[in-house]
This record gives sequence, structure tokens and C-alpha cells, in this order.
Amino acid sequence: MLSKNRIKYINSLKVKKYRQLSQAFIVEGAKSVLELLDSDYEIEFVLATQEFQQKYSTILSRNSAEAETVTAQELEGLGSFQTNDSCLAVARTKENEFLSYQEPEFVLVLDDIRDPGNLGTIVRVADWYGIQKIVCSEDTTDFYNPKVIAASKGSFTRVQHFYTDLTTYLADQAAGKSVAGAFLGGESLYEFQFPAIGGFIIMGNESNGISPEVEKFVTAKITIPRIGEAESLNAGIATAIILDNMSRQISGK
Amino acid sequence: MLSKNRIKYINSLKVKKYRQLSQAFIVEGAKSVLELLDSDYEIEFVLATQEFQQKYSTILSRNSAEAETVTAQELEGLGSFQTNDSCLAVARTKENEFLSYQEPEFVLVLDDIRDPGNLGTIVRVADWYGIQKIVCSEDTTDFYNPKVIAASKGSFTRVQHFYTDLTTYLADQAAGKSVAGAFLGGESLYEFQFPAIGGFIIMGNESNGISPEVEKFVTAKITIPRIGEAESLNAGIATAIILDNMSRQISGK
Repeated sequence: MLSKNRIKYINSLKVKKYRQLSQAFIVEGAKSVLELLDSDYEIEFVLATQEFQQKYSTILSRNSAEAETVTAQELEGLGSFQTNDSCLAVARTKENEFLSYQEPEFVLVLDDIRDPGNLGTIVRVADWYGIQKIVCSEDTTDFYNPKVIAASKGSFTRVQHFYTDLTTYLADQAAGKSVAGAFLGGESLYEFQFPAIGGFIIMGNESNGISPEVEKFVTAKITIPRIGEAESLNAGIATAIILDNMSRQISGK
Repeated sequence: MLSKNRIKYINSLKVKKYRQLSQAFIVEGAKSVLELLDSDYEIEFVLATQEFQQKYSTILSRNSAEAETVTAQELEGLGSFQTNDSCLAVARTKENEFLSYQEPEFVLVLDDIRDPGNLGTIVRVADWYGIQKIVCSEDTTDFYNPKVIAASKGSFTRVQHFYTDLTTYLADQAAGKSVAGAFLGGESLYEFQFPAIGGFIIMGNESNGISPEVEKFVTAKITIPRIGEAESLNAGIATAIILDNMSRQISGK
């Protein structure tokens, strides 16, 4: 039987302020919790149905996390937004550690991405294309928002993130490197050559794009060529298409 | 002042059964309503704030649709899911008309796409890449679902759709043509040559992919190459990446 205190604690973690105070976040659903159990995140506890615990007893026992048995009904009442009837975990957030650029990688830079669904999708897509570091402006939505975690489909365990002032970061890390930024009216993405020695790829805010202060560091403005009439593409989609072109070029195809 | 009957009518249109009975659907928000006013959809009425009506009086007067003045508060109470404080329209759905294949176009075929957000994103992406026809299996989510309309960001006005039994449709329309289907473990998307004379591109269900009956019509199984570790990509993202590669190849880049 779930204690009132635990329910209260989990609910508090739906709010950024309390996630930061408690340095903890929620992970919902079987797939995401299994990836969490397999990651280097420190887990406070797992709430799981008897069925889930039996099915994944080996994975659970490999991890020292406390597992409390709950009913599917109890879990559904807790869920922040998605149907979840198997498990929920609370894990410790990581320190906001500096991520230094290592040639020949590509580092993804997010300038004020506001929508949690977009950020989660971007994390998932970055993971698909082997991007290991995402550097976010301080006004980018919180990585540990339950919607980000859910949309990342477990990729949050593999992609590192660092929130910082982008101008300071880029001045320090991007000097002399390729910094491609997504713009309207830039060079065609199909013509642009992603350098084999890597660099930075910057995606801007959903409505306003890349800010003028960050634009100063951009060495190539790239645009996804349009054939039809849609006015724009969603930030997650645009990131996916740019990373796909980068990945194809780097693989020499 | 909005009548109770009108409020009841609008609310009924959030449900597929009533959309089909009334042959009408809801369009929410300034951007989508403006695109609707500029399209060949027949509009039953527009509910708009005084501010919206003044700002877009020319566009509104070009269209014979009845415009009722409402307050921002009245609109927010009506919205099915998104913040909307400027306007909402009700338009007539179109007949489910057969879409014949016209060389050298690419027709997008959706086999049981269930998530309305995914379908809306797919419509938007199709519009970006100049795809004009989407053929959907009968179990694909309803095109006129408010979430589909919203996620399409106005592209629903430009992309035609047809719901049908896909095996009958493909047997009739796809014989002798290129039919590329998205699969795990198929040929690399980067190696596959999209034919200059066009063809079909099939995307499958979010969990189960393309069904065995539809698979029989596939002439090329294509896969988005993965460098990293994410297990899968969302259906909207996968469609965007495949259409981007098609578009780039066809444009000769």
C-alpha cells in the first residue's frame, strides 16, 4: 500500500522547482524504467506491479533499488499524463556537468527549445544518430520534465546534457570549428558539407529560431529544402532531418 | 453570446461518430482557421474575437462563412485541447473520394497509423515535401480528429486523403510501380533509389509496422540507418526522414 507521503513526493516531482529541490525525477512505463535500470542513473525506488516484478526479477535484482509492489490502479492514479499500469521509478537527477567538445563528434546545441515533447523527441533522435551530448540554453525546457523523459523513450539514459549560457559555451568550445545553425533562407541542407572532423549543430526556438547572440557563432546557416507549401516544420522533425543528412554524409553515402 | 445549442454542437464534433453524422469538423486557432478560409473547404461558421475579425476582415469577407463574435473566454472554454483565444471554425468534411495515382508523383500510404498527433505531423511533413495524396487504411485514425487538424498546422487544407482497404487499392493502383515500405532490417534508405517516375511510400503502424497483407505489395523494404542506440523512431519522424531522402534524390542533390 502506497504511503501518502510517497504519493505526495511523486506528485511534487511533476514540478520543476521540486525536482530541483529534491534532485530527483519520475520515470514512467515499462520501457523507460527498464532502460533506467540498465543505466548509470541512481534510483531511489521503483513502484511496480507484481507481474512486472516477476517478469523482470533478474533486472530488478541486479539493481540495488528498492522495489515496492503496487497495483495497476495505484499506478494509473499516479501517472502524470500517460497510461501506465506496470511501473514507475524515481531516480536522482545528475549534476549539471560541463560537456567538452571532443573531435570528431557532433554536439547538438539547443537555443531555447520550449516544448517538452519536442525536447524529448530531439533526445531520442540524437540517440538514434549517435549524438552523445546536447548543450541547452538556460531557458530550454527542463530535461527532467516527465514529458521529456516519456518522449525520449529511454534515450534520456544515453544522451548527456548540459544547461549553460550558450554564448559563453560557444566562445569557449566552438572557436575555429564548424557551427551549423538551422535557419530559414540559408544554404540548402543538401549542399552543405558536414565536416568529417565534426562540429556543432544548433537548433533554435520553435517560434523565433536561433537568437541573435547565438547566431554570431554560426559559421553556416542551413535550411531544409521545401518542395510543397507547409510553412514550417516542427523542431523535433527539423532536428531529425538535419541529423539524418549529417549521418548520411559522414557515413559516405 | 454563444447559444447552448452551438456549444453542444461543437462539443459533439470532438467525437468521430458525431463528426461523421454531421459531416463537419472543428478547426481551432488563428493560423489553422486562416488557412481554412483560404482553402476549398466549405465553412459552416467561424467564432472569432472582435480583435481577430478586425485584423482579418478582408479574408473573412472574401468567404461567405457566417462569423459570430465571441470573447476569448468563451473560446478557451470550447477548445478541445489547445489554448485558443482568437477563433474556431466548423467546416464540412469532404467526401471520401478515390485518389488515383498520377505519374510521376509519390503517394503516401498509411497502414494503421493510430496516434492523431502522428497523423497530423505526417500530413504537415507530406505538405512540406510536396506530397499531395495520402491513402489511409480504414483503421488509421480519423483525419478530422481535432488533434490531427491541429498537428497538421494548416496542411490539412492542401493534402488530399482517401480511406480505403489498402490491399484492394494497391492491387488496383500499384501494379508495376515502385512500392517502398518502411521496415526494420530492410535495405538502407541511403542506398535505395527512389524512381524518378514516382511510386508509393508505405508507413506502418506505430507498434506493429506494415501488416502482412500490405507487405505483399512492397517492392522495396527500406530502413533508416541507425548509428546510435535508440530502439526506434516515432512514425512522424520516420516519415519525415524518408520523404526528405526521396525529395533530395528526386531533386538530384
